[in-house]
Amino acid sequence: MNDLTILFADRKKTGIGKCLYQQIYEYIRDEIRKGKLPIGEKLPSTRSLAEYLQVARSTVDAAYGQLVAEGYLEARPCRGYFVSPVEGLLAISPDVSDEKIPSDIVPGGKEEGTFPEYDFSPHAISLKDFPFATWKKITKNILVDANSEMFALGEPQGDYALRETIARYLHSSRGVNCRPEQVIVGAGNDYLFMLLEKILGRHVPIAMEEPTYKRAYRVFQSFAYEIQAIPMDESGMDVERLRETKARIAYVMPSHQYPTGVVMPIGRRMELLKWASEKEDRYIIEDDYDSEFRYRGKPIPALQAQDAGGRVIYMGTFSKSIAPAIRVGYMVLPLRLVRTYQESCGFYASTVSRIDQRILNEFIRDGYFERYLNKMRKIYRGRHDFLLGEMACFEKEFVISGENAGLHILLTSRSQIPEKDLIGAAAGAGVKLYGITEACMEQATQSHMPFAGTVLLGYGALEEQELKEGIGRIKKAWSAWL
Amino acid sequence: MNDLTILFADRKKTGIGKCLYQQIYEYIRDEIRKGKLPIGEKLPSTRSLAEYLQVARSTVDAAYGQLVAEGYLEARPCRGYFVSPVEGLLAISPDVSDEKIPSDIVPGGKEEGTFPEYDFSPHAISLKDFPFATWKKITKNILVDANSEMFALGEPQGDYALRETIARYLHSSRGVNCRPEQVIVGAGNDYLFMLLEKILGRHVPIAMEEPTYKRAYRVFQSFAYEIQAIPMDESGMDVERLRETKARIAYVMPSHQYPTGVVMPIGRRMELLKWASEKEDRYIIEDDYDSEFRYRGKPIPALQAQDAGGRVIYMGTFSKSIAPAIRVGYMVLPLRLVRTYQESCGFYASTVSRIDQRILNEFIRDGYFERYLNKMRKIYRGRHDFLLGEMACFEKEFVISGENAGLHILLTSRSQIPEKDLIGAAAGAGVKLYGITEACMEQATQSHMPFAGTVLLGYGALEEQELKEGIGRIKKAWSAWL
Repeated sequence: MNDLTILFADRKKTGIGKCLYQQIYEYIRDEIRKGKLPIGEKLPSTRSLAEYLQVARSTVDAAYGQLVAEGYLEARPCRGYFVSPVEGLLAISPDVSDEKIPSDIVPGGKEEGTFPEYDFSPHAISLKDFPFATWKKITKNILVDANSEMFALGEPQGDYALRETIARYLHSSRGVNCRPEQVIVGAGNDYLFMLLEKILGRHVPIAMEEPTYKRAYRVFQSFAYEIQAIPMDESGMDVERLRETKARIAYVMPSHQYPTGVVMPIGRRMELLKWASEKEDRYIIEDDYDSEFRYRGKPIPALQAQDAGGRVIYMGTFSKSIAPAIRVGYMVLPLRLVRTYQESCGFYASTVSRIDQRILNEFIRDGYFERYLNKMRKIYRGRHDFLLGEMACFEKEFVISGENAGLHILLTSRSQIPEKDLIGAAAGAGVKLYGITEACMEQATQSHMPFAGTVLLGYGALEEQELKEGIGRIKKAWSAWL
Repeated sequence: MNDLTILFADRKKTGIGKCLYQQIYEYIRDEIRKGKLPIGEKLPSTRSLAEYLQVARSTVDAAYGQLVAEGYLEARPCRGYFVSPVEGLLAISPDVSDEKIPSDIVPGGKEEGTFPEYDFSPHAISLKDFPFATWKKITKNILVDANSEMFALGEPQGDYALRETIARYLHSSRGVNCRPEQVIVGAGNDYLFMLLEKILGRHVPIAMEEPTYKRAYRVFQSFAYEIQAIPMDESGMDVERLRETKARIAYVMPSHQYPTGVVMPIGRRMELLKWASEKEDRYIIEDDYDSEFRYRGKPIPALQAQDAGGRVIYMGTFSKSIAPAIRVGYMVLPLRLVRTYQESCGFYASTVSRIDQRILNEFIRDGYFERYLNKMRKIYRGRHDFLLGEMACFEKEFVISGENAGLHILLTSRSQIPEKDLIGAAAGAGVKLYGITEACMEQATQSHMPFAGTVLLGYGALEEQELKEGIGRIKKAWSAWL
């Protein structure tokens, strides 16, 4: 608050005849324009500024409201008002660096824009049901016991106890065959990919399913990997097409492909494993990102469970199954890659704090994770079933696919209504849908792919009432096509 | 149907306790795997198998459904279930990997061996005085407030509030000029180096001081960087020698070089900055790893504080000043590298959990960090002074250097007693000392360097009584030379 009150100090003396609201509004706006109030700066609360200026609080409220409306400020619930990133404004910090922050440098990283009322994001998950109380209890207990050893640096691969717990969990829930020695714990999958680059080498030709998980694609692209987009058919990555490339690595999501929802049948799995076994340095990266959520039948075992030749690198994360803030993912390396890892980057310090590792270990080991997964599976299944029911009205015009697992469903237009028309119409009704082309690597082939005119409807973060209302709005918006 | 019912005949008799659905599923799956149910074979209808086995039809439905989902069976509308063609199935491995863990794969990562009674490790720090109670209190309060937003994924660069706090702290304590937009928070320096590789590019020729911080050297080596070892003189990296190389990056520790303890004077700093400014893509990495601990005079400002041209990448860590388990380091990028960062890897998810970021933010913001640093500075200064006093007896034979800052002191033999003899004799008396050659990159030049016959005595983790006893033992062990 200091800066602003200092800025206002002069003003207070020279106060001119304009209405107070206008004065406050213009003053703050100009300070932002000049860069004296830098992007991200928190403003004093309306109450304290009103007290300081000795004006009615409603006057300050009105000024702030105007600034929010014009995009100079943003209001963050329970936190207050902050200077927005405004393109083209020169944000100069007076007392610190006088270099200018170019307008293309995003201060936060969060995208700005209007928020849709119903966001069917396929990546959103529900955090409301997370057992915060349990997590807090475990944390508290661990901190009570915490000694200086807990604050010392742990093992690079992750604490052995946690790796044992993960290996046991993966074996029982996913059929993964591994020893704790093969497990590497790291702060999220992007970091684990960075380690994989060190292990697998540079400029590696890598095959990815088309469409695929775009985040992994961007990471591989940032590694300057030669990426081969291999078309999907109804069984997953087309291994014949894979053979035509010189790819050494195949990145796949056999349990529930993103975004198509295709489950790779055992036959295709064996073909893929056979491909890998044919050359010395071929590997498969199995990204098992949301395998915890399957609503019909048993979970599909991991591809790694069938890997007799040590060719599958298995990756998983707790970001989807516990919470994104829990920056813990893991990968299971084939034994010979464990050796490469230890030689090439086994000395890199662990990226996960020991305290977090211990909390996570107890959360899984003591059964809370299993219980939470069961609860979430039930909740997500409920939403999935409800959404499918609501979507019945689309069946004539759309093919529904990708159901029974994961957190999203696909709608494909039978009459090839362009994806952008579908999304645009929904957006007009306050509903955000996601097009499958966002998950496509090669823009050129879009129109030829079997998923043309396809939108994704994620339901992880939407409750039944929201699903109902959202679908109702889509129905209206699309009425010309239905 | 015949085959399968015959196959089931045995099974029916020996039926074990597993749930029926699981039994049927596993049985059919195993028969397919073993090839006993050939490809294309039609299975009995769910109704007839249910009757035959005297189980509910839904049980058989579920088992078939699972087998279809996994690709063992295929359902043909109006015709029934058939065994899918599966390539290479017979090669499937038994349920658990019986591959042995080769003996060269270290399960833990911790080195075994006998522990010396007095370990003068230059990397050890004291954790006894860490304000665990405060840390726990902050954690507890944060968890009380914790809501689902805290468990959502934060910004890739780190939470803005923490970056603001770090920028403010660096400005006041180290003179660093930066905006929160330039700060990147990451899980430890090894991770931040990995990001730097993405930002600075590959195969970069990099100059390092000889001797240097070996951990950074190993990391750069793992990047296949062309490392140029530049000799140190009493002012730090020899810039004339640096000019003879084609290095684009210079990695330096100007405030307290590791291991020599040299503080780079302002003249050398300006020379180094000038070198960087002469070509478009030259940068200096300033690793300010232990600048918090300086016992005489004011802290030396960071090199970054004098950098007018945006050429210094400033790195720091809380691992040394708070605790190694707090996996949080940070770097401050020049503005144009912020842009490169955002383009090349700005989308990599943050490696530090939001909860940890928030704890750390409050710990610093609310003054606990400053207080803790003051306390530790006093403790370390006490140990430093005490150790210097105890070491007076070495002055005739040894040059003492690197004092007044950091957590270790150097002893250099005036009569060139080999380092290994010094260490060996001490080890015989239960004292572990560290040779400077451990910090050398080029083994060949060891004997020519000004630090030949030099050992490091770290005192961070040793109390006065231990320092006294340790030095007493060294004195005895070295009595022939003193």
